[in-house]
Amino acid sequence: MSELNKISADGGSFPRRPHALSVDDYVAGVQAGNRTILARAITLVESSSRIHEVQAQEVLQRLILRPAKARRIGITGVPGVGKSTFLEKFGCFLTAKGHKVAVLTIDPSSSRSGGSILGDKTRMECLSRDENAFIRPTPAGSNLGGVARRTRETMILCEAAGFDTILIESVGVGQSEITLRSMVDFFLLLLIPGAGDELQGIKKGIIEMADWVMINKADGDNRLRAEQARIEQDAALHYMQPATPTWKSEAALCSALTGEGISELWECIDRFYRELEPKGIIARRRQEQALDWLTDLIHNELQRSFYSNPRVTARMPALQGALLRGEITAVRAAQTLLALHEGHNEQSPST
Amino acid sequence: MSELNKISADGGSFPRRPHALSVDDYVAGVQAGNRTILARAITLVESSSRIHEVQAQEVLQRLILRPAKARRIGITGVPGVGKSTFLEKFGCFLTAKGHKVAVLTIDPSSSRSGGSILGDKTRMECLSRDENAFIRPTPAGSNLGGVARRTRETMILCEAAGFDTILIESVGVGQSEITLRSMVDFFLLLLIPGAGDELQGIKKGIIEMADWVMINKADGDNRLRAEQARIEQDAALHYMQPATPTWKSEAALCSALTGEGISELWECIDRFYRELEPKGIIARRRQEQALDWLTDLIHNELQRSFYSNPRVTARMPALQGALLRGEITAVRAAQTLLALHEGHNEQSPST
Repeated sequence: MSELNKISADGGSFPRRPHALSVDDYVAGVQAGNRTILARAITLVESSSRIHEVQAQEVLQRLILRPAKARRIGITGVPGVGKSTFLEKFGCFLTAKGHKVAVLTIDPSSSRSGGSILGDKTRMECLSRDENAFIRPTPAGSNLGGVARRTRETMILCEAAGFDTILIESVGVGQSEITLRSMVDFFLLLLIPGAGDELQGIKKGIIEMADWVMINKADGDNRLRAEQARIEQDAALHYMQPATPTWKSEAALCSALTGEGISELWECIDRFYRELEPKGIIARRRQEQALDWLTDLIHNELQRSFYSNPRVTARMPALQGALLRGEITAVRAAQTLLALHEGHNEQSPST
Repeated sequence: MSELNKISADGGSFPRRPHALSVDDYVAGVQAGNRTILARAITLVESSSRIHEVQAQEVLQRLILRPAKARRIGITGVPGVGKSTFLEKFGCFLTAKGHKVAVLTIDPSSSRSGGSILGDKTRMECLSRDENAFIRPTPAGSNLGGVARRTRETMILCEAAGFDTILIESVGVGQSEITLRSMVDFFLLLLIPGAGDELQGIKKGIIEMADWVMINKADGDNRLRAEQARIEQDAALHYMQPATPTWKSEAALCSALTGEGISELWECIDRFYRELEPKGIIARRRQEQALDWLTDLIHNELQRSFYSNPRVTARMPALQGALLRGEITAVRAAQTLLALHEGHNEQSPST
């Protein structure tokens, strides 16, 4: 093992490996908009190796000192709503207007790894060939906290590389939309017209978080049903507090197929920034997001440390069973587990 | 100090103090429905003294082994909605039907202490004289987790003392309704008719959690506006997933002043248990609540331990400031604080 380590630690031994980059290389390359280095910086951020993590944090720390201004737009909707086609159309519309667009994904349920680049590029065929667009697939991992962190850090890298519009999509599976909402300025919900049941697929509270609702596939035979769905959504939004203070969320129609509604959406997003930026509402949202993120990181790590403690995991099922059978109070079960956790911490690391 | 401890440990030294009760005394007294001992058991549960906590947990642990069947009903609404008058009318209606009713409160914003018993008894004058009713005011404390825990434990005590209907109210201040929802079977939202603005006072998502919505003060001149509010609420509920699977939440009118709507509400609650108990939905909700509570207790304690660590609190403001000014990444800020916390844990307790 130690011999092997020595060999792989020596970067030059494997000629087919890309040349190792220093923190300076990453920072300069990303800031120069070098796509290859950007892609490698994202891979660095996604790495679970401890050494890479230290380097990645150093790169990010250097990059945030020269903050870049980008619009952060979140897009969500259940599978089948046509997100890929929509992102393709919307992305190409933006690059045609001279924008540099990065498309990222939050999908904790995905088990896709590096190989998925092809998958994502296939589903956005035109955009993936666009030199002003950068598509990065979901980082692998089943833990939402980890996926969210990598997506946030990838966003920082893309912004530093000069992308002025970041589109982040999430699949509609509960918690991931809330995570997405916590990292974007503007949050778009895509729906499709259906037999009234389309609302069932959407977790509670998602509509309330939306700055805009688009009824997609409002084309052909669907047109009438789409208009009906729009009216229903508008009525639902009417009963909710606005997702963003002083901003009125509405429902509109679009067709990712024909491109209808895309330019109106961009006008709406323009108006969102034009109206809310002078009021400081977007800056305040980002500050709140930064503090919330810090809190999340801390709480996630405290919990990870607890739930990965072998003394805790060994006793947890029995105590949960006793709790469900009414044999033990929740407080006593918690105290027992916390004592086991603390006891473990007091041990020396060698045991 | 040690001398003082010796004296106070000897219960007989202070003649004006009530005679100290043993765990056996508490358990037997509560199970016999002795109101004085019930009240003292609740005070024991509310005590922040370490010795009392151990004794309280022993009492609770003994009591849960003989589980009591009670209906747990949560009632929420913004201040001014008429909760006290409603609880008074509803409580008296139930005791007249032969029920034993306990009225508890969750109000983390309250700084009321023992002295508030008078306040709570004054606002429910008739019910407080009813020997089949037991009114217990908010436990003092600004920490919602602590207040929630005491309310849950008080509920266990009241159930063991033979109260078959537990009414728990919360004031409408955000998080406390979510906490209330997490400890009751049936969740009632009280509203008043207003100029359409009444919804503004209600935090997002509260209506979605309701098993029933009552428009209170539907009397006199208010009647027409109340009916209008009811229709609006019914429409809003129509767009939401049911708070309880297979149960259809609706909006109805009531007047706590005239008592109108009170017996209909009870019929509705009866139907709720009659329909959902055979399906196992209420048992499943309680099991989920027990596991969620265990998780909450663990997470709260992990966080309390972190945020009360003096090394953490000393550095936190500076790191938050640097984060908001964009000088440091959230991950680096979190890592710094977590390292300080762990460093502290590794220290011996004597330092």
